[in-house]
Amino acid sequence: MLDHFFNPESIAVVGATPREGKIGNTLLKNILSFREQSVRIYAVNPKYDKILNIRCYPSVLQIEEGVNLAVVAVPAIRVPEVLKQCGLKGIKNVVVISAGFKEAGREGAVLESELIRISEKYGLCLVGPNCLGIINTHSGLNATFGKSTPTEGNIAFLSQSGAFALAVIDWAKVANVGFSKVVSLGNKAVLDECGFIEYLAKDNETAVITMYLEDIREGRRFIDIVRHVTRTKPVVVMKSGKTEAGAKAASSHTGSIAGSVEAFRAAFQQSGAIEANSINDLFDFSLTLSRIRHVTGGIAIVTNSGGPGVMAADAIEESGLGLAAFDRETMEKLRDLHVANFYNPVDVMGDADSDKFGSALGIVSADESVGAIIAILSPTAPIEFDKAGDYVLELTGTKPIIPVFMGGDEIAKTVERFKKHGITNYFDPVRAVRALCAVKKYSESRDKVSAPPYYFKVDRNAIKELIELRDRKEVKRSMGVEGFKVLETYGIPVPSYGKAETAAEALELADMIGYPVSMKIVSPDIVHKTDVGCVKLNVRREEVKEMFFEILHRAEKYTSARRIEGILIQQMIEGGKEVIVGMKRDMHFGPLIMFGLGGIYVEVFKDVSFRIAPLSKEDAIEMIKSVKAYRILKGIRGEPMSDIDSLVDVLLRVSQLSMDFPEILEADLNPIKVFEHGKGCYAIDFKMIMGAIR
Amino acid sequence: MLDHFFNPESIAVVGATPREGKIGNTLLKNILSFREQSVRIYAVNPKYDKILNIRCYPSVLQIEEGVNLAVVAVPAIRVPEVLKQCGLKGIKNVVVISAGFKEAGREGAVLESELIRISEKYGLCLVGPNCLGIINTHSGLNATFGKSTPTEGNIAFLSQSGAFALAVIDWAKVANVGFSKVVSLGNKAVLDECGFIEYLAKDNETAVITMYLEDIREGRRFIDIVRHVTRTKPVVVMKSGKTEAGAKAASSHTGSIAGSVEAFRAAFQQSGAIEANSINDLFDFSLTLSRIRHVTGGIAIVTNSGGPGVMAADAIEESGLGLAAFDRETMEKLRDLHVANFYNPVDVMGDADSDKFGSALGIVSADESVGAIIAILSPTAPIEFDKAGDYVLELTGTKPIIPVFMGGDEIAKTVERFKKHGITNYFDPVRAVRALCAVKKYSESRDKVSAPPYYFKVDRNAIKELIELRDRKEVKRSMGVEGFKVLETYGIPVPSYGKAETAAEALELADMIGYPVSMKIVSPDIVHKTDVGCVKLNVRREEVKEMFFEILHRAEKYTSARRIEGILIQQMIEGGKEVIVGMKRDMHFGPLIMFGLGGIYVEVFKDVSFRIAPLSKEDAIEMIKSVKAYRILKGIRGEPMSDIDSLVDVLLRVSQLSMDFPEILEADLNPIKVFEHGKGCYAIDFKMIMGAIR
Repeated sequence: MLDHFFNPESIAVVGATPREGKIGNTLLKNILSFREQSVRIYAVNPKYDKILNIRCYPSVLQIEEGVNLAVVAVPAIRVPEVLKQCGLKGIKNVVVISAGFKEAGREGAVLESELIRISEKYGLCLVGPNCLGIINTHSGLNATFGKSTPTEGNIAFLSQSGAFALAVIDWAKVANVGFSKVVSLGNKAVLDECGFIEYLAKDNETAVITMYLEDIREGRRFIDIVRHVTRTKPVVVMKSGKTEAGAKAASSHTGSIAGSVEAFRAAFQQSGAIEANSINDLFDFSLTLSRIRHVTGGIAIVTNSGGPGVMAADAIEESGLGLAAFDRETMEKLRDLHVANFYNPVDVMGDADSDKFGSALGIVSADESVGAIIAILSPTAPIEFDKAGDYVLELTGTKPIIPVFMGGDEIAKTVERFKKHGITNYFDPVRAVRALCAVKKYSESRDKVSAPPYYFKVDRNAIKELIELRDRKEVKRSMGVEGFKVLETYGIPVPSYGKAETAAEALELADMIGYPVSMKIVSPDIVHKTDVGCVKLNVRREEVKEMFFEILHRAEKYTSARRIEGILIQQMIEGGKEVIVGMKRDMHFGPLIMFGLGGIYVEVFKDVSFRIAPLSKEDAIEMIKSVKAYRILKGIRGEPMSDIDSLVDVLLRVSQLSMDFPEILEADLNPIKVFEHGKGCYAIDFKMIMGAIR
Repeated sequence: MLDHFFNPESIAVVGATPREGKIGNTLLKNILSFREQSVRIYAVNPKYDKILNIRCYPSVLQIEEGVNLAVVAVPAIRVPEVLKQCGLKGIKNVVVISAGFKEAGREGAVLESELIRISEKYGLCLVGPNCLGIINTHSGLNATFGKSTPTEGNIAFLSQSGAFALAVIDWAKVANVGFSKVVSLGNKAVLDECGFIEYLAKDNETAVITMYLEDIREGRRFIDIVRHVTRTKPVVVMKSGKTEAGAKAASSHTGSIAGSVEAFRAAFQQSGAIEANSINDLFDFSLTLSRIRHVTGGIAIVTNSGGPGVMAADAIEESGLGLAAFDRETMEKLRDLHVANFYNPVDVMGDADSDKFGSALGIVSADESVGAIIAILSPTAPIEFDKAGDYVLELTGTKPIIPVFMGGDEIAKTVERFKKHGITNYFDPVRAVRALCAVKKYSESRDKVSAPPYYFKVDRNAIKELIELRDRKEVKRSMGVEGFKVLETYGIPVPSYGKAETAAEALELADMIGYPVSMKIVSPDIVHKTDVGCVKLNVRREEVKEMFFEILHRAEKYTSARRIEGILIQQMIEGGKEVIVGMKRDMHFGPLIMFGLGGIYVEVFKDVSFRIAPLSKEDAIEMIKSVKAYRILKGIRGEPMSDIDSLVDVLLRVSQLSMDFPEILEADLNPIKVFEHGKGCYAIDFKMIMGAIR
């Protein structure tokens, strides 16, 4: 279906006009320049009979033949009528360029829902509104109102911002970046990135899918599609609106509501999309990924100037890519070549000519431990760049080579030649390394076993009524002591416990549990129980009754509402390391699971990891391993390793709980005490909030 | 003196040759193209009478007139002789381009020390050897063997790598970057960056001093000079060889030995030099700093396309620069202008023309809370970039404006115009924000009160013999219990203590100190005292004797050397938070002081800060505030604030100790227990290593 956007047999330009400088005029001109001469093009505008020498129809309904694609540039208020006509005419693919919808305020939003309704009724594939249009460089279709058409290439570019797409298209021509297809998504009223990602995955002219996004509304679908697509084709994405200020700005723009940055990051990680944080990165990564798909082994540097070689080595070390360690044969050959350094980086020195440089490249590329080569060349007197370029082109079949030919005019011709072979030259060695990092990230995520989410057998129904909302109007409710039952039902270990309403009950419970115990107030009015003296730890048998009354006394002093439900008597769990598992619900992505080490690590260092549920076992393991404090769990200074498996288990069970009960808006298991390997963990306390999903 | 390198009245080119493609030929040609016609130029080469139509002398001694500058490009082995002749002739400024010195191995290093000796004897200012040469674009002097001369500009560029300088010069021409002066420092045998920084600070044609360095050998001098220079002129530096791999590579290149990265970072911070980590950053920062010297107030964004506006907002938030909050008047004016968002970022929308964009710029630039403006423009149909450029040029007098005009051909003319006014356009909003960050960093460091190092009155002599090396051959020695006396003498609070050799002595001491006490083995053979059971905490009176024997027993079991000196009885300090103060000696910068929170924070999060001694009070305060865990010291969750003042005091005293006694190679005060404000801190334990300085 989407193919008609890129390869239509007939196009109607609704809102075409002979008036120079108007969108409807530029648009028609661009479409008329379509390379495929067999394509029929119709202008539509009731005011004219003929525009730019082609016949003009009052509406699409009057066009005699069938039409595949309508591109609409009429005032917003007239778009619904035009859409209906498209529907009646049987046109299924429509690009609405017109602005004045959700991005323009409340009235526009109403108009936009009208578009959605009509599209649904007639089964329209609608791009936009408020977009720049669509380009297919390979067929020569430019259905945009931009002044320039990009050059052909193998990068498909999806942009949620039309103005940004304009800028990129204009810049790309001078930067020598070519595109296969460009889609300006606009307000994404009907079609969003997901459908196009699926389409482009199968597009032979597209090697990399590159996106600029401001929001992702179908989070789960996005993850599923991208995870599938990245198995065969890299997806590079820049997402704006990450900080609070940025998100605020994004929400006033294109009418989008940005979700939480943690959810996006997690979605990209889980789906294998490569995230870029600047325009430089976005295209550096895409260009390199369009050619190089994996790096297995260390990185070698061959240079004729020490300085930039050192910069590259620094950047490789800092990025964790790893410098190649040459084997003995390589080093011997390099020594025979008389280079300054036959370890990595290889410095052929400033007096080397292109042949010596090429020989070094050849020797290094034959080394099995080398995964990719960064070839750095300064414009010294003996260097002929063209000749050096020959070596790069010749050897890049053996090993991926990233050229860092440094200079301006001196390198221009060679850079141009590289381009023709799809090779990007970098002036800055650091940018070359960053691009290689993106490749490594891509290949690692692609090679990762894609395990299905993990499910346990759980008696859901046993706790259903504890969680279900009491009535429709109920906004938010905190789970009381009964939450331990929820955790137990889901197989999450909790200390033995019971709720006592009298001192005698307390003693009875404590006797059953065994000493020492902990005692905590149970009251929806008291959140910070410890702060008001309503938690007693390490209570011995002879103290139970006294403590019971003391806690009650303090609680009554503190809360006026007096919603005191009793006192929790809990098995005292001593020792262990404290971790936190949390869940909050992102409006676009669903349950977002958090993991971190307790207390100060989360609070001061923000050392936490996130993934979107449902989690696979691999997701859970990754979550734990990716916090810096993981070293503490592994055991430092000879301490035993903590029971990581038991934490993986808890993460998976919390994931499942969050999927089973959408009524749970937030959950925090804090602290979870984890013991050494084989000795498990216990969720000591929790917070759980139920409510209606927005 | 250095001025003759840039503005000589007469130049001798030693090693000039008529043979095309040779360094001595290109060099002479470049120098002959000198714009200042009054300058006398002499070729020197015993093989020729005339080269390129000028007279050629067998040696500088035969030149009849006086010579200011000699540029030497003869084989390395002949350089000493040439230098002697320069000395005899009275030439004080010499650039040695020839390679084959320290960078080429041991023989070269011997030759290089010969150059140093001759330079000292004749009082020569020598640049190089193994360098590209020197350029002064303003006088037209190109004393290099490069193929191209850079365009004029106000950035002075010092490079330790000649090949890198070549690349930058060639690149700069296409990137529209202009230079005032370029110096290739080479092996820095005699002159290094320091002298040139001082010279360039006073150079009216230089607005920013930009450097690429691989090592800094006179660390203290570097800090002092740069700190002084940055008061009036920004210094931007890229230092390679930061990681272990990079440092290893750097040390094989130019024969430099890289110091520790922490020392460099600290030196840049303390001196106000702006550090760049890539070539992009190096010149982005320099170009923007050449025009904008301070940002006071928040950053405003004005854009015609939401997407890039959001990107800029994100980058500003993440960098900590801070978005401007407009005052009411501004917002009212913006509302009257009908913009999509009259908060910051201001989105004039895609249908805005250049005038509307200009009006928004005008309104925002009049707002007092705005410190600088990022002006983002996508190539939409209504925008005329030239006109928009007028507004930027007009208003940039009111408030610094960074243009982010996005596109290729469409913006080329305007970008060119900006260049003429010294304004850099960025394609990537994120790079514009990074450059503004550098400006903010510069202005903050410039405005910082430059306090002198803090000194306490201390009876140095009282501990002199404890620290002094026992004999010349002594390599390394650990300080024993007597180290507490060193700390006490320097006014660093330590718990009461004493060393007991018998159980009776132990009891006597403990009685004096008061209970409970801690007891620790004193033995140079036992480093990890706790691990082998040789530390007992919270010892009560009745346990002292028993513990004394137990510790002894365990120690004797552990150490075969039996160098047991006794048992340390120490006042037991309970509670408090643990911090570490450390000192190690960097070979180029001297004592490097470290601060961090104890244990896991240092080990897992590497959350530490460094400064080079001697510290000022401000340095010490900054050190404490710049660790992330500072929040823990400030007190989280209602805890009282720790006694920061007492830690500042310890840092200053350790700084002074390290300056007073170069014999102390390393010191660690770990842990230091700090209590709440007003209650001070105690150094509980320490490690101190004395030795001969390398």
